[in-house]
Amino acid sequence: MGRRVVIIGGDAAGMTAASAVRRRLPDADEVIVLERGHRTSYSACGIPYWVAGEVESADALVARTPEQHIQNGIDLRLGVEATAINPKAQTVTVHGGETVSYDRLVIATGAEPIRPNLPGISGDGIYGVQSLDDGQALIDGLADGPRRIVVVGSGYIGLEIAEACVTRGFDTTVIERADTPLRIVETELGEQIADAMRAGGIHLRAGASVTGFELDPSGCVVAVKTDAGPVPADLVVLGLGVTARSGLAADAGLPRGPKGGIVVDEHQRVEGFPQIWAAGDCVATRIRVTGEPSTCRWAPTPTSRGWWPATASWPQLLGEEPQLSFPGVVQTAITKFCSLEISRTGLGREQAVEAGFDPVVVSIETTNFAGYMPSPGTMTVLMIADRTSRRLLGAQIVGAEDSALRIDVAGTALAAAMTVDDVVMLDLAYAPPFSSVWSPIQVAARAMVKALAG
Amino acid sequence: MGRRVVIIGGDAAGMTAASAVRRRLPDADEVIVLERGHRTSYSACGIPYWVAGEVESADALVARTPEQHIQNGIDLRLGVEATAINPKAQTVTVHGGETVSYDRLVIATGAEPIRPNLPGISGDGIYGVQSLDDGQALIDGLADGPRRIVVVGSGYIGLEIAEACVTRGFDTTVIERADTPLRIVETELGEQIADAMRAGGIHLRAGASVTGFELDPSGCVVAVKTDAGPVPADLVVLGLGVTARSGLAADAGLPRGPKGGIVVDEHQRVEGFPQIWAAGDCVATRIRVTGEPSTCRWAPTPTSRGWWPATASWPQLLGEEPQLSFPGVVQTAITKFCSLEISRTGLGREQAVEAGFDPVVVSIETTNFAGYMPSPGTMTVLMIADRTSRRLLGAQIVGAEDSALRIDVAGTALAAAMTVDDVVMLDLAYAPPFSSVWSPIQVAARAMVKALAG
Repeated sequence: MGRRVVIIGGDAAGMTAASAVRRRLPDADEVIVLERGHRTSYSACGIPYWVAGEVESADALVARTPEQHIQNGIDLRLGVEATAINPKAQTVTVHGGETVSYDRLVIATGAEPIRPNLPGISGDGIYGVQSLDDGQALIDGLADGPRRIVVVGSGYIGLEIAEACVTRGFDTTVIERADTPLRIVETELGEQIADAMRAGGIHLRAGASVTGFELDPSGCVVAVKTDAGPVPADLVVLGLGVTARSGLAADAGLPRGPKGGIVVDEHQRVEGFPQIWAAGDCVATRIRVTGEPSTCRWAPTPTSRGWWPATASWPQLLGEEPQLSFPGVVQTAITKFCSLEISRTGLGREQAVEAGFDPVVVSIETTNFAGYMPSPGTMTVLMIADRTSRRLLGAQIVGAEDSALRIDVAGTALAAAMTVDDVVMLDLAYAPPFSSVWSPIQVAARAMVKALAG
Repeated sequence: MGRRVVIIGGDAAGMTAASAVRRRLPDADEVIVLERGHRTSYSACGIPYWVAGEVESADALVARTPEQHIQNGIDLRLGVEATAINPKAQTVTVHGGETVSYDRLVIATGAEPIRPNLPGISGDGIYGVQSLDDGQALIDGLADGPRRIVVVGSGYIGLEIAEACVTRGFDTTVIERADTPLRIVETELGEQIADAMRAGGIHLRAGASVTGFELDPSGCVVAVKTDAGPVPADLVVLGLGVTARSGLAADAGLPRGPKGGIVVDEHQRVEGFPQIWAAGDCVATRIRVTGEPSTCRWAPTPTSRGWWPATASWPQLLGEEPQLSFPGVVQTAITKFCSLEISRTGLGREQAVEAGFDPVVVSIETTNFAGYMPSPGTMTVLMIADRTSRRLLGAQIVGAEDSALRIDVAGTALAAAMTVDDVVMLDLAYAPPFSSVWSPIQVAARAMVKALAG
């Protein structure tokens, strides 16, 4: 009799674990995936590009189809929703009442879009953007020819969708509770993003809290209500971020972190439940800079990276000693929006204070290649460091083309717990078409050294 | 009576030290710079772009003019060549016999192009590309309308000049002793560069050693002689790399490293000479990965980075305790050539063996953004790691646009002495327009983990 590994969830994290385990286990062992939907292994991050028409179809966003997984020997059960986990009996109950027993269980239920409990939220014409089905529904909704689109929330998915809508010719408004958009960057940079929105033809209603949705007699949305007055809308997109889909785990008594994510060790094993692992957006991911689980709803591990920490747990799933530990994330994020590239990593100012650091913030402007080359683009780099230890805490970039990927130097430096002095002394690539003599991250680090001395 | 800081050399390293020291010293102290030429603070790396016509004039390559330095209170003496250093008397003798005394001395004499002692090397029409005067001479030479240009050596400056010449319509040949061009990357990648040269219309004569230059009766070059036969030439550019200009230091008994660079400590102070510092290309720069001074003639610290290690020595020059140490370089280099971007960092295969490592080399091909986006470019990433310690030793990239800067992740990881497992676990920027889910460097690191397991 073989062993049985059961995986709940067929998106990136779940299917990657399934594939890796299937390849390594003897044929006699079973690998079962319970997926409530009808798709597997897709890139949710690609949805805005699909809505914009830059990606042709949902199929292009699917890395591996259900048929391919089944051919690989995975017992993939589509349209099967897990409704309960019984850790004592080592069973999962599915919709309809049947139970599936397991020797080892992986929970990869992902994230769900935040849908605040506001009056009218269930009206027609109000869309989320988490799954490919959501994406298809939104594309169908846009095909009906709405006049005014309102995006609620200005996270990066919200902004990307807003840009897709305005590019397609719709009158588009973004409502944001804070004073500046995209709260994953500091206010100084948010103002540049607000300018780019206006220049790109997107209406921004900042500092406005949504209080509900006005529906017509047939139940269709006609306006978004805010504390600063109503905003007319024929179609609404909710871009309020996502939260761990961990209800199933919570009902089974599994531990959850401050924002609802399942608490796991460095091999993704659930604390206190040696037969259960969890991976992907349903997990409380450890932040390397603080050593604590993330408390930011805006910084999930991208769904498609679920398989990344999962690599640290595959050997355990097979009953072997793991060689790799998952050290956690530094909260790197990147996006293109209108004419801007935007990226960030590490702690923000507020997060740094919460974590007990004494943050110093500097912000510099530089060019993305040598100033004497034709038409260099400019970028702003904001850097955050701890006054006492001189440790780099975070960096953020807003700029023209070829700006945002520079953030990876800071992300790597954060993983190595470098000081800003260490960053100044890095030997980074320099040639006139690529950068001025100092890499933009180093220009900021030098400004920080000066600020710490002053 | 104030103190007197004397600096030999007015390019980037020297003038940056001069400026920093001048700003911080009391007015009564003197800062004297002895520069044998008539320019200061210029970007030698920009010369190929000037030759190509992308940069309009030499002035654009000058970061700060002599007048600006003089206005800032630096006693800049142009056209004054230092001919001897007397460390005991604390004096520098200059051309003409005058001596200049110093309390503290900085040697920043830079590098000189390698000019092998071959028959005919002093003929007319044979150019170097180290100084702005060299650049101007070459531009003037090209204006005379030569038909056939031959570049000797295929280092990055050689290749950049060859591309500038072919772009301007000249019949251009590159002669390289090795079997593939650009020896700062491994042969596997060199072959891609050879293909790009041919596609770009540059003739490549690989595996040919230059034995001399054929001159006409008037002393003008007419061919480059090689062990594989003569190559007709109306104008020759020497692109054989540079070597430390350290004769002055050697004559004064200062210590020199394996390739002639002046040996300094981590604050750029010359070993055994407490009143003398050295900075820039005349120094034997420490390689971080091995801890040894560089033995590669192809990997100088870029001239324009001279001021970078110099920052570690300014406080000492002022008589203060230094806060920063210069840890050395990881040998990062980057260039654009024809349709390719090329970059490298760390040790090559051969260097790794010489340093006592057991190098494993993998090479992968990946796209520079998500495969489902329109027309992603491809790149090859080659990675070198130590079999026993799993430490990252080096990385090299050849690819389409938006490829080469990825090397900075590897450069930062090398500075932190990361293993390839650490690199796999980095949290790097991901969004469909920027990369596939794994950053190219991580795709290579994952392949390395697999290779080390196999």
